[in-house]
Amino acid sequence: MEHLRIPGPTPCPEEVLQAMTKQLINHRGQEFGQILNDVTAELKQLFQTKNDVFVLTCSGTGGMEAAIVNMLSPGDKVLSVSIGVFGDRFADVARQFGAEVIPLRFEFGKAADIDDIRRALQNEPEIKAVLVTHNETSTGVTNDLASISSVIKEFDKLLIVDAMSSLGCINLPVDEWHCDVTVTCTQKGWMAPPGLAVVSLSPEAWQAHANARMPRFYWDFSKCQSYLEKSQTPWTPAVSTVFALSTSLEMVLSEGLANSIARHARVGKFTRDGLKSLGLSLFADENYASNAVTAVAATNGLDTKSLLKIMREEHQIVLAGGQGKLDGKIFRIGHMGWVTEDDIEPVISALKVALPKAGFAK
Amino acid sequence: MEHLRIPGPTPCPEEVLQAMTKQLINHRGQEFGQILNDVTAELKQLFQTKNDVFVLTCSGTGGMEAAIVNMLSPGDKVLSVSIGVFGDRFADVARQFGAEVIPLRFEFGKAADIDDIRRALQNEPEIKAVLVTHNETSTGVTNDLASISSVIKEFDKLLIVDAMSSLGCINLPVDEWHCDVTVTCTQKGWMAPPGLAVVSLSPEAWQAHANARMPRFYWDFSKCQSYLEKSQTPWTPAVSTVFALSTSLEMVLSEGLANSIARHARVGKFTRDGLKSLGLSLFADENYASNAVTAVAATNGLDTKSLLKIMREEHQIVLAGGQGKLDGKIFRIGHMGWVTEDDIEPVISALKVALPKAGFAK
Repeated sequence: MEHLRIPGPTPCPEEVLQAMTKQLINHRGQEFGQILNDVTAELKQLFQTKNDVFVLTCSGTGGMEAAIVNMLSPGDKVLSVSIGVFGDRFADVARQFGAEVIPLRFEFGKAADIDDIRRALQNEPEIKAVLVTHNETSTGVTNDLASISSVIKEFDKLLIVDAMSSLGCINLPVDEWHCDVTVTCTQKGWMAPPGLAVVSLSPEAWQAHANARMPRFYWDFSKCQSYLEKSQTPWTPAVSTVFALSTSLEMVLSEGLANSIARHARVGKFTRDGLKSLGLSLFADENYASNAVTAVAATNGLDTKSLLKIMREEHQIVLAGGQGKLDGKIFRIGHMGWVTEDDIEPVISALKVALPKAGFAK
Repeated sequence: MEHLRIPGPTPCPEEVLQAMTKQLINHRGQEFGQILNDVTAELKQLFQTKNDVFVLTCSGTGGMEAAIVNMLSPGDKVLSVSIGVFGDRFADVARQFGAEVIPLRFEFGKAADIDDIRRALQNEPEIKAVLVTHNETSTGVTNDLASISSVIKEFDKLLIVDAMSSLGCINLPVDEWHCDVTVTCTQKGWMAPPGLAVVSLSPEAWQAHANARMPRFYWDFSKCQSYLEKSQTPWTPAVSTVFALSTSLEMVLSEGLANSIARHARVGKFTRDGLKSLGLSLFADENYASNAVTAVAATNGLDTKSLLKIMREEHQIVLAGGQGKLDGKIFRIGHMGWVTEDDIEPVISALKVALPKAGFAK
């Protein structure tokens, strides 16, 4: 079997996969209602929030769209803080639905600069919301969200956070950091299969929602709320994936969120140290290196496409390339979710053999 | 274990559930690409279409929203042919995104009248598209879609079909009946878990798409098309559910679509005959009775809520109630997907015992 080391979907523990062999049940019955309520309560623990949390049946990008259309009206000014492909995507969604996006883009590989954000907010008092990526999966950079949030809240703006690849892996106390909307998905830190997104909403987010006029039906958070009061979702949910998520969240909580975050920190450092020992250059600013995914720059003659092929065909290890303008410029190793040093060690060993074959000369 | 007899999600064969125990793979790698291509080809066979077919990660309602926002512009006139809750929902989605909906509603339990549709199209030449439910899950009525399509095509309008509970169960030759957009989901006739919707698009639908200005990002069919050319989906798909769908479609094709449709016809008649033998009144006009779901009217003192409770608690059989204004007025039995007469027989036997306890007096 291949060893999947991309930044999502991540491998799932056997118990999580087995959970999906449970026969389907009525999504509007008591048994499913209890599971949905339990999963929602567990998600609140992992989001470190007392706010509302909803499970949506969609990919992570669907969760981004849900966040945008529930918070904004066409013409609203939105500051997009982007440090990579997913930050740009968040801005694209907002633009597509008629928001006036003020882009604040940072060099890929760097974290967002707090002073630049402050300046942007000073320059444009009419900004209503700020879009921030906590962990940028495309570059392996983790923003200093606590500080970013402080600045945004100085100006009393709505903070909408893409936490796809951070929740469960990297500390994100949603309430303490005043995240108004936080979006994540199941196939990253929570070691469940893809197919569900999860959003949290602060009281301020609910206020914004009440005035938001972007068109929405499938994503409508008001419908999510009124159905969750009946222990249901508005539309037929991905029942089997909810079974899997229920099992995986129990595993995360049984390890303990703090322990999981500490494990990711340990494995992240182990990965970076291993890569550097091979003479590779990390793409991300190391002060903001992600503990969920590491990007490696294509230096010293390294042909990343050739490397990915050799790793897959000769070592049965699946790594990821770069996205968008980073295609061919980097390769990425996912170390989120169900991962320990023992999963990374063979990757480093295989890279040692594969790198010279892919043109890399130390 | 409970015997699930609601109109979706339906029970899944063990092989389908077991398919989801396969470890996750790279959704942008060759192996998944091959599975996606195979599933897409099989779906085309089952849609009886040569048109494009896309798999979306969402509930069926997400598929409805996708159909609307990809085909229409705000202000477009749309004829909504509604015979039940799901017909009304389709109209709601269109209205929510700014379409001018002309509602043509028929009494719940009846099929749409062809002459009324013709008159509506004559009265309003500016109608751009017509929304039609093939099989109305809320009432157990199957529209005569072949005739409806003929009228709509006399007027050269776009035909957008909700085929959630018909495809796989009831004959729907998409190309022969000139369906421009056809939407379905996985948890009905295809006996797979929920979490995926499927849409087909005719060349005329692509033309409409090119001019459609409703805002869209997650649902954008152009993105679906360009990614499918690379054997991918734009966003991370519900990989495990695709594994399940792949297995279930092979089972449907191995039975043969015509045989599956014939089996549904047989089981549908068996269900209706059994219910009538108990003295129950079918809610739907029998000339249009659905072979996928049967609705029973609450006559002769029958308390449907009490009946559903007794069936569940004393017979471990889960039936469905009525939705919306049909709440308390009907109960429903699903007989779609993985079902034979042997699954319905115990339902009829249990009803015989339960009905008198729920107030029903013959």
